Amino acid sequence: MGKPVARLKDVAERTGFSVNTVSLALRDSPRIPLETRKLIKQVAEQLNYLPNDVARSLVAKETKSIGLILTDLENPVLTHVAQSIELALARNGYTTLLATSNNNIEEEMRMIEVFSTRRADGMLIFPCSHRSLDHIRQLRRRNYPVVLLVGDPNAGIDAVSMDEQNGAYKAVSHLIAIGHKRIALIDGAVILGNTEKQTGYMQAHAEAELAVDVELFVDPKGHSVEYGYWAMAALMERSVKPTAVFATNDSLALGVLRYCSKHGIRVPAEISIMGFDNIEFGEFAVTPLSTVDYDVKRVSQLAVDRIIELIAVNGDLPEPRIIQVEPDLLIRESSSRPPAPVNAGKTTD
Amino acid sequence: MGKPVARLKDVAERTGFSVNTVSLALRDSPRIPLETRKLIKQVAEQLNYLPNDVARSLVAKETKSIGLILTDLENPVLTHVAQSIELALARNGYTTLLATSNNNIEEEMRMIEVFSTRRADGMLIFPCSHRSLDHIRQLRRRNYPVVLLVGDPNAGIDAVSMDEQNGAYKAVSHLIAIGHKRIALIDGAVILGNTEKQTGYMQAHAEAELAVDVELFVDPKGHSVEYGYWAMAALMERSVKPTAVFATNDSLALGVLRYCSKHGIRVPAEISIMGFDNIEFGEFAVTPLSTVDYDVKRVSQLAVDRIIELIAVNGDLPEPRIIQVEPDLLIRESSSRPPAPVNAGKTTD
Repeated sequence: MGKPVARLKDVAERTGFSVNTVSLALRDSPRIPLETRKLIKQVAEQLNYLPNDVARSLVAKETKSIGLILTDLENPVLTHVAQSIELALARNGYTTLLATSNNNIEEEMRMIEVFSTRRADGMLIFPCSHRSLDHIRQLRRRNYPVVLLVGDPNAGIDAVSMDEQNGAYKAVSHLIAIGHKRIALIDGAVILGNTEKQTGYMQAHAEAELAVDVELFVDPKGHSVEYGYWAMAALMERSVKPTAVFATNDSLALGVLRYCSKHGIRVPAEISIMGFDNIEFGEFAVTPLSTVDYDVKRVSQLAVDRIIELIAVNGDLPEPRIIQVEPDLLIRESSSRPPAPVNAGKTTD
Repeated sequence: MGKPVARLKDVAERTGFSVNTVSLALRDSPRIPLETRKLIKQVAEQLNYLPNDVARSLVAKETKSIGLILTDLENPVLTHVAQSIELALARNGYTTLLATSNNNIEEEMRMIEVFSTRRADGMLIFPCSHRSLDHIRQLRRRNYPVVLLVGDPNAGIDAVSMDEQNGAYKAVSHLIAIGHKRIALIDGAVILGNTEKQTGYMQAHAEAELAVDVELFVDPKGHSVEYGYWAMAALMERSVKPTAVFATNDSLALGVLRYCSKHGIRVPAEISIMGFDNIEFGEFAVTPLSTVDYDVKRVSQLAVDRIIELIAVNGDLPEPRIIQVEPDLLIRESSSRPPAPVNAGKTTD
C-alpha cells in the first residue's frame, strides 16, 4: 500500500497505447507484439498498476468472495447445492467460503459475524430456523447483500428456495390418490419451527377429507439414515400401522427402507416409501426411492444471480424478491398402491 | 489501511462516553439514545475505528480461524471428516472456513491463496494429488502451519491420514483368504497419481502369489454412486468375470450393489462387494457393505491437535510429524466365500 495505485487508463496515458491494447498486453495476448507487451508491463509495474478486479475490491471494498452457510455438512442435498453454487459463483469470478451452523442458531450468528468481519461481499444462508430471522434481517437493513436458500417468504429478506410445502403436499396427495389412507410422517424439522412439510401433509389430507392420525407422526430426532431406521422401528411398535411412509428427506427414507428389508417387509408391496430431495443414494438404492425432486441447479443458479445483482447495487437494496421453485414428484420403485385390505384376503406375491 | 486504527477506548476518550457505552452504541443497542449512537458512530468512523476482534487479529496476527480444503464436497466421508474437524476446532475456539478444490489443482492453489490472504491461522488440506505438493511445501517453508489429511508421507509436510495402502491391502487380503481369485478393482484415483489403494491391492496379490489380471481393473471416471454402477456394467462386459469387487470408496461400491440388484446378481452369493470408508449409506444399505473403516474421529482429533501445536510455535516450525492411522476391516453382509466353481455344480439358493 502507501504507493498510489494505477488503473488501466493510467498505463494507457503513460504509454500512449489504447486502454484496450494495454488490457490485452497485460493479459499477455498474442495479438499484441511481444516487445509492446514487455514495455506495457514494465510501465504498469512502475506505476503500481493493480488489475481491475483487485483495484475494484480495494476501492469498492469488494473481496470477490461470498459466504455460504449450511445447516448440516452431512446432508447430501445441501452439499450438492453448495457444490453447485460454488461452481456457479466461480464462473462469475467469486470465491465461495463455506461454513456450517450445525443447526445451532448461535453458531449461525457467529458464522455471519465471521463472514462480515472478513468482508465477504455477500452471504447465501440456509438458516436453521425458517422463522427466527431477525439477525439476518439486520444484515439486510444495513444494505448487506444476503439471500436465503430456505425460509419464511414474508421475512422481508431475499430468498430462493424450493417450495417445501408444495413438495410435501404433492407427495402426500399422490399417496392418497393411489389409495393410501394411513400415511406415516417422519419429520425432524417441526421441532426447529420449520413446519412447511408438515403443513403440506396436512393440506393434502384436508383436501382429500382424510382424517390425520397423529399416531402416525414420528420425530426421528436427527436427519440421517440411522434416525430413519429407528423412527421406523418406533412406528412399527404403535397400534396403528401405516401403509405408506413419507420421510421428509431421502436419508431418513433410506433408513426406513433398510428397516423394512431387515424385517422382511416388502417395499412397495406391503409398505410404500416416499422421500424428499432426490439424492443420488436414493436414486441408486436397491429399491430406487420415490421422492420429491430438489431442483439443485435451478435454485443454485437463481440464488447466485440474485446475490450478484444485490452486490452490484450501490446504496439502498431494492425490495426483497422471493422465488419459490415448485418441485416435481419422481415416482420410482418404492411406492405403489397399498396392499388390499385384510378382509379382502391377504396379498401374496 | 494507511490511516492509523482506533480502538474502543480511543472513541471513548474522544467522545467522553465510557467504553461500555461506546461498545453498546456501536452495536446499535437500544439501551443508548439514538442521537448518542449517531454521534458515537460518527466519531468512530472519523477515527477509523476497528472492532476489537479485527483489531486483535491485526495485532496478534491471529484470526482464530483455520482453512479446510476438501477435494470434493459430495464425498460423504470427506464431509464427515469436515464436520468432525469443525466441531473439534470449535471446542478449541477456532472457526473453520471450508472450501473445495473440486479435485482441480489450480483451484486448490487458488483456495490456499484465498485462505492465506484472509490470514487463516493455519490450513488443513486434502490435496487433490498426493504427490504434487510443492505449492504446499512452500507454505511450510514460510513457517505457515499446514497439515495434510492425506498424502505422501515423505513430502516433508505434517500429515495425519488413514493408511490407505494398508487398508486396501487388508481388504484384498481378506477376499483372497476366503477364496477369491478374481478380484476386480474399481479405482478412480490412480489417474490423479494417487496409487496407494492400487499398491495395497498389488501387495496382497504378491503376498498370496496370486497373479494380477488387469482385465479386472476399471477406472470409473468419477467418485459417486452412478460411476460405480457404470464401472460394474463395464466389468460385466469383459471376458474375465470377477467373483469379488473391491471398490475404492463406498459410494462406488453402492453403485456396484445397485447394478447387481438390478441385474439379478446375488450379493454375496454370486459376487462379493468390498467398499472403503464406512459411510453411513453403506452401513444402512439393503445389503450392508463390507468396508474399510475410516477412523474419522481419530484422524480429525489428531489433525486438529497438530495444527494447534503448529500455530502455537513462534518462529521456525519443528520437523514435520507424519501420523498414519491403521484402518480396521468391517466385514458385513456384502462379502463371503466365492461361489463353488462351475464344474463342481452351479450354486443355488
